[in-house]
Amino acid sequence: MTPSAADGPAELIISACTVLVHDDQERAGFAEDAAIVVRDGLVDTVTTTAAAAHLPAAERIDARGQVALPGLINCHTHAPMVALRGLAEDLPTEEWFNDVVWPVESNLTDRDVELGARLACAEMIRAGVTCFADHYFAMDAVARVVTECGLRALLGEAFFSSQGPEGRERSLRFALGHRGSADGRITTALAPHAPYTVDDADLAATARLAHEHGLPVHLHAAENRDQTDTSLARHGVTPVEVLERTGILGTDVLIAHGTGITDRDLPLLGRADGRTAVASAPRGYLKFAWPSTTPVRALRDVGVDVGLATDGAASNNSLDVWESMALTSLLQKSAEGDPRWLTSRQALHHATLQSARAVGLGDSIGSIAPGRRADIVLVDLTGPHTQPVHDLAATLVHSARSADVRTTIVDGRILMRDGELLTVDVPEVVRELTERLPALTDRGHGRRIQEYDT
Amino acid sequence: MTPSAADGPAELIISACTVLVHDDQERAGFAEDAAIVVRDGLVDTVTTTAAAAHLPAAERIDARGQVALPGLINCHTHAPMVALRGLAEDLPTEEWFNDVVWPVESNLTDRDVELGARLACAEMIRAGVTCFADHYFAMDAVARVVTECGLRALLGEAFFSSQGPEGRERSLRFALGHRGSADGRITTALAPHAPYTVDDADLAATARLAHEHGLPVHLHAAENRDQTDTSLARHGVTPVEVLERTGILGTDVLIAHGTGITDRDLPLLGRADGRTAVASAPRGYLKFAWPSTTPVRALRDVGVDVGLATDGAASNNSLDVWESMALTSLLQKSAEGDPRWLTSRQALHHATLQSARAVGLGDSIGSIAPGRRADIVLVDLTGPHTQPVHDLAATLVHSARSADVRTTIVDGRILMRDGELLTVDVPEVVRELTERLPALTDRGHGRRIQEYDT
Repeated sequence: MTPSAADGPAELIISACTVLVHDDQERAGFAEDAAIVVRDGLVDTVTTTAAAAHLPAAERIDARGQVALPGLINCHTHAPMVALRGLAEDLPTEEWFNDVVWPVESNLTDRDVELGARLACAEMIRAGVTCFADHYFAMDAVARVVTECGLRALLGEAFFSSQGPEGRERSLRFALGHRGSADGRITTALAPHAPYTVDDADLAATARLAHEHGLPVHLHAAENRDQTDTSLARHGVTPVEVLERTGILGTDVLIAHGTGITDRDLPLLGRADGRTAVASAPRGYLKFAWPSTTPVRALRDVGVDVGLATDGAASNNSLDVWESMALTSLLQKSAEGDPRWLTSRQALHHATLQSARAVGLGDSIGSIAPGRRADIVLVDLTGPHTQPVHDLAATLVHSARSADVRTTIVDGRILMRDGELLTVDVPEVVRELTERLPALTDRGHGRRIQEYDT
Repeated sequence: MTPSAADGPAELIISACTVLVHDDQERAGFAEDAAIVVRDGLVDTVTTTAAAAHLPAAERIDARGQVALPGLINCHTHAPMVALRGLAEDLPTEEWFNDVVWPVESNLTDRDVELGARLACAEMIRAGVTCFADHYFAMDAVARVVTECGLRALLGEAFFSSQGPEGRERSLRFALGHRGSADGRITTALAPHAPYTVDDADLAATARLAHEHGLPVHLHAAENRDQTDTSLARHGVTPVEVLERTGILGTDVLIAHGTGITDRDLPLLGRADGRTAVASAPRGYLKFAWPSTTPVRALRDVGVDVGLATDGAASNNSLDVWESMALTSLLQKSAEGDPRWLTSRQALHHATLQSARAVGLGDSIGSIAPGRRADIVLVDLTGPHTQPVHDLAATLVHSARSADVRTTIVDGRILMRDGELLTVDVPEVVRELTERLPALTDRGHGRRIQEYDT
């Protein structure tokens, strides 16, 4: 398709950059000296800088020396937990939950969640994330923040069976009330916490609601091997088998972590009726000293997409999806004992198309192509740490950093321009959040929202 | 010591920052609202902002919202190899050496080395590195660059036994000719490549020269388990036992990598007569899919310092010591199966005092304290990814990134100020280096400088 001035002025033209494009085999390639023409929030065309030079446009970005990538997608996080960043360090999983995080979360207010989400969105916009899948409490507040700050998100209100039916009902109310909001940037999911905190009856009810209302399900499962071992010992089945027998695998399901997925789970995941994807956040697995990472190769072998994620900043310390991309490549090589596996191009495939499918947006984001949403980040490769360039995919995955993102665009709207955040007032958020931290982090009451006992 | 105007104007005063300081047990602490007074290239005092406010100074930095750390130390790299960044991707070690790196290095000219070193120094200054231990060829060119750009370095001219005695003699000539140059910023080492490329006679001769001339030795050893297994099969001894029997362990020795160090090596390393340290560059071990990382806990248990390193950018893709610090913490937790091990404070100890001792400068750098060289970096923690701060050590190690370094100072001289590099012209270096890449990377000749056959 050749762009034409007859279409009227474009909303935005980004020119003189290198653009990551996918071919019909989903292989990443790079169009040099290219221009992206944006209309109505969509990519209209990817053309040459010369061809775009004379087209009228409301706004232009000269992106010389920069690479345009599909915006990164954080496929599993708990954005408001940035408020707890660094609060629970160097602890085993059980103490992390029971002694710090779940006691502190019993203090959470809507305002804490809102401020945390706003800070998290600022961090993600700065780091080139254009879409995130969030799984937390008081999600009305997160939806408000997403609406304001301009990001795209798949949001789910988390629940435990310990909350009674009200938890599941609130998750459904949230999902139905918010889907399609923020001009379509918000999609929603049902969000049971995990098979070890949500019983089979609740999971089965969730699966039925998902089918009835056409909603996906986002939950934690087989987070680590301990959970799988305990599930086997107590129930004789793995967490994935629980998902299968409760019907969750028949829905469109996004499973967080899955480092405890076993060989016997793989056929179930591979032949699931719904769209099945796993979100991998490898940094936290190292930090908790879990014995394994997400089995990416085995999941790919049965056709399951693996999206990149950061988990919450209370465990991961950052929402840096770029780091997750590099670590996924490094740790998968190490885990498989194979330096040829999970090349930079494979890592980019996880970061783009696989992550887009994982959050249920495989047809609309994850690629810079005509008709896709204009979710684009511009990365500066002129820094000494990204020169010279022998292999652009390797430069992007292994040399560039999230801090090299200069400009972040969602639906054609510029959320950060040349390093300047346009939709979040970080100092003001930090000021108010800091004032609230003593009340938020108080553990003197002895309460916790839930018990970790896999 | 109270600073006094009677001493005459200070060279530099950095005020209003938080300063990482060590107590007499080498524990890291943080002095708030502090000022660092620099005279004659040394830290004169660490005092309060108020106490420093009225002292005269030739130059002042208001470092509000920033943390002052001892400059990072890259304990093992091959700086000029940034020219090959991304050239040999996703390959096993043997193919990496034999098919790409060693053929390409047969083309190296002094000018390539100089340009590579200059780009590397720019990258390191930007990332908060103030000192690096370099092990490469044509090191006169590297020494020139270090002199110009203002960094501190421990430099060694690498040699193989395949070069005959001339290799060793050149390494000695370089070490004697350059030590103490650049106003004392350059120190030198003898630099045999490794026990698998330098024979026992050459290693023994190196040890004798080290004693005779008071020089340390910097070399690769037990880089991975394959090397240890092959050494055992061929010679009946481990690489570390080779170092012991050839007298290298009796010198002040800096061993790169050591992921193949075995339990039987530990007593030898622990009771060595000289100063023994290991440099760990964990990113590359993952990328090559080596089965283990440096055994940091076991080395610490026998009193061996472990410094942080990046190795060359041809394997590591960056010279980002900050990333090495975070990865060391994460991978050691994972390797030991212990989330309580290698806390952020331990990581900072590796990054500061242990790394300083590893490069033989334990008395002069690695800490911000009176009498130490003023090698200081200022880190901005106002970004959304480093807020809020519940635990400053954790924020530094797990949330901050090398890109958060704003200012880099060596011997009191500002090499980067508020993100602006002052001593390297990056675009000009990249321009000339890029022109030279076709000749540098040509492998049509079939030569290589050495054969990898452990």
